[in-house]
Amino acid sequence: MKKLVLFIVAFCGLTQVQAQTTKDSLQLRNFYDLSLLSGQSYQWLDALSNDIGARLSGSAGAEKAVQWAKAELEAIGLDKVWLQPVMVPKWERGAPEKAWINGPDGNIDVPVCALGGSIATTADGITAPVIEVQGLEDLANYGEDQIKGKIVFYNRPMQADLIQTFSAYGGCVDQRYSGAREAAKYGAVGVIVRSMNLRMDDLPHTGAMSYGDLPNEQRIPAAAISTNGAALLSKMLKTDKETQFYLKMNCQNYEDVPSFNVIGEITGSEKPDEIMVVGGHLDSWDLGDGSHDDGAGVVQSMEVLRLMKAANYKPKHSIRVVLFMNEENGLRGGNKYAEVAAEKGERHVFALESDAGGFTPRGFSFDADAANFEQVESWIPLFKPYLIHYFELGGSGADIGPLKGNGTVLAGLRPDSQRYFDHHHASNDTFDAVNKRELELGAATMTSLVYLMDTYGVKPAPITNEAELKD
Amino acid sequence: MKKLVLFIVAFCGLTQVQAQTTKDSLQLRNFYDLSLLSGQSYQWLDALSNDIGARLSGSAGAEKAVQWAKAELEAIGLDKVWLQPVMVPKWERGAPEKAWINGPDGNIDVPVCALGGSIATTADGITAPVIEVQGLEDLANYGEDQIKGKIVFYNRPMQADLIQTFSAYGGCVDQRYSGAREAAKYGAVGVIVRSMNLRMDDLPHTGAMSYGDLPNEQRIPAAAISTNGAALLSKMLKTDKETQFYLKMNCQNYEDVPSFNVIGEITGSEKPDEIMVVGGHLDSWDLGDGSHDDGAGVVQSMEVLRLMKAANYKPKHSIRVVLFMNEENGLRGGNKYAEVAAEKGERHVFALESDAGGFTPRGFSFDADAANFEQVESWIPLFKPYLIHYFELGGSGADIGPLKGNGTVLAGLRPDSQRYFDHHHASNDTFDAVNKRELELGAATMTSLVYLMDTYGVKPAPITNEAELKD
Repeated sequence: MKKLVLFIVAFCGLTQVQAQTTKDSLQLRNFYDLSLLSGQSYQWLDALSNDIGARLSGSAGAEKAVQWAKAELEAIGLDKVWLQPVMVPKWERGAPEKAWINGPDGNIDVPVCALGGSIATTADGITAPVIEVQGLEDLANYGEDQIKGKIVFYNRPMQADLIQTFSAYGGCVDQRYSGAREAAKYGAVGVIVRSMNLRMDDLPHTGAMSYGDLPNEQRIPAAAISTNGAALLSKMLKTDKETQFYLKMNCQNYEDVPSFNVIGEITGSEKPDEIMVVGGHLDSWDLGDGSHDDGAGVVQSMEVLRLMKAANYKPKHSIRVVLFMNEENGLRGGNKYAEVAAEKGERHVFALESDAGGFTPRGFSFDADAANFEQVESWIPLFKPYLIHYFELGGSGADIGPLKGNGTVLAGLRPDSQRYFDHHHASNDTFDAVNKRELELGAATMTSLVYLMDTYGVKPAPITNEAELKD
Repeated sequence: MKKLVLFIVAFCGLTQVQAQTTKDSLQLRNFYDLSLLSGQSYQWLDALSNDIGARLSGSAGAEKAVQWAKAELEAIGLDKVWLQPVMVPKWERGAPEKAWINGPDGNIDVPVCALGGSIATTADGITAPVIEVQGLEDLANYGEDQIKGKIVFYNRPMQADLIQTFSAYGGCVDQRYSGAREAAKYGAVGVIVRSMNLRMDDLPHTGAMSYGDLPNEQRIPAAAISTNGAALLSKMLKTDKETQFYLKMNCQNYEDVPSFNVIGEITGSEKPDEIMVVGGHLDSWDLGDGSHDDGAGVVQSMEVLRLMKAANYKPKHSIRVVLFMNEENGLRGGNKYAEVAAEKGERHVFALESDAGGFTPRGFSFDADAANFEQVESWIPLFKPYLIHYFELGGSGADIGPLKGNGTVLAGLRPDSQRYFDHHHASNDTFDAVNKRELELGAATMTSLVYLMDTYGVKPAPITNEAELKD
């Protein structure tokens, strides 16, 4: 009799698990169908990219994007939609930059663009000899003797043999971010950085740079040069070390200006005080229209909540879409969101960011403890029909990073990364480079993960505080 | 003592396995490094696409491609390179097609292109009312009464909710291939088929069609219309069922002409009589330059043998690259290759085709028995660092299909398929749509599979013939 009871209990347990798995499978299928057959993400991206366009923090485009996103979130009937004020930096490129290499047969124009945050050159531009280095650490090999009065040319390329292009980016981007600060210490008069691009082409790629705590009078202008331009300059320097370079930039830093994170919420039916965030960043660089970086993440995040409503799915937890302002050159939005959450004592159990382009989704990386990652791994079979296979521990997203701690599980969508740096921060980060299906698959994949997180919950962090154990 | 021996045997066995796994890992890494850092595939594709261009069977481009491929294979120092003669069909598009919808406010031009193999319209073109159907099987719902004298408009779209776009293609392509033959039986005067394209755009997509054994006098012209054109026509037919359509096509079928498969071989060091084939098809459609279909497969297949040589890897089996002629409208090359192999009593143990575009590789599908597929599955961990995860039973490739039987393992490269039908058989199947890294990753992935097949061999088919069992 005891055995029979055990058998029945085991059998019912199994059936329940099977029924839940079937329910999950059907729910995922429904999200994918809705996204692919009647999705909104691509149309939203069309509006954000083509009607609004570039939206660098503090620009008119960024403010238009804020109002647009708020209106669209209101239109899908969320429980709450609001703007969260945040002060952001304001930098403007000004008139297009100009640069040339002074070769033996005259000047050869090369495509450059100011790095975000850089000061301008003098009104006449600067002309100086060039010293090529292979990274920040290479400066010490030359020393002030060989660097002073010159333009430092950082030419370490992205490593093509790294399969994940973000690793190749990580191995180079210090040249862009800190190149001017470090070169200035050796008396350089300017900096040009090989664009963070795995392709050989004529497009310069901008991006954030910082002078750190370098005094104003020591700051020097910093520009990116296209990969073809970098190759040409390097070749000419090999022939003639005295080759001169001309650079003219017209950019300007302003006082901080007010802006906003845009937030919408479906309030949870069972655990309204436990919040799950899905987001991307609303700001972009100024050269293209920011379709991949991060228009895609914005519209996919909006689509997660819309798909839940379209599927008539009522989450247990509160699901928030957060469209962060100023990821590109300050992270003010991400920091502000976490700061306000802490002030209000809000409990964030999960956050997911899409900020790696609108390409075919491959999976997610997770910043989570073992128990939560194990739970995630149990969901892998549910994603197999959608060719979603990548579930690894790793980083998540810059904007949600400040939410880390207190057991919050963080995750980042991981799309195919091979083409991402062809467009990143360049004038060809535009709507036509985004494929509708790839974007929609990403939105459905994100919705599926949020659904599973909502259904099964986040495993609590192990209690390590002795006082708590005693309670 | 016995236990100790067993332990030592087990331990040594394990160590050997580990050593081999490490060797395999390093060999794969080497292939990927060589492909990504000093690969030849992208430069080859540049030449094939931009210097030669379109290469429909029987065209001057196809013959140029034959000579080019032979010379390039000779240049990499294979053991043998030869041309295999094959007669191929010849069809020419002639002057660009013309079509319009006769609307209430005048004629509206729509983008069309003749389907490959179609007859032309009369010199003045044809004008007729249109009947829209949702597929071949839908013809019977209208019958001769409603079809006779009309142009049949096949408008069943590719299914957007299918994750693998080749499945969506498979669900529609009968309209293109057999649409004219079937509609002619009901007295239709022409056929227009919605392009096999998941995007809404203005590009018509050509492709093969067949009249089967329909007598010449019953044959009717068949064209593809762009997806936007199809949507417009469908909308106008809803308003006015009597809407007329004008179609003018100038194509022509000719007698068969001689052409070639291009073949190169590294002769095996241990089993020279056991042949492993890697290939793609050298012919393309005439509208673009065939970079994805199948320039990518051609240069990736060539690169497999070049990478083996560059890595100083000496295969045990004979490894052949076969660049098939006439996959698109006849499969003459694939059939000829298998026919000659049978005549010569050649033993083909493995064949791999790349004919699904030059996009990021995801894995392979296999036409293999359980024992061989099990062996393939044991290699999955070796591919994980390259994000190659898809190993499934399924189809392989059209050109290698005729090699099926006698235990030959067949496989097809499976790249990401989301963008493939944006370009397939259309004027935008061009070099700029191929990403260098994606192409190179595919070549390295193919080389890795061929290396593993060569190293571990193909499992023999189980003996089922009783006579053989007795021997």
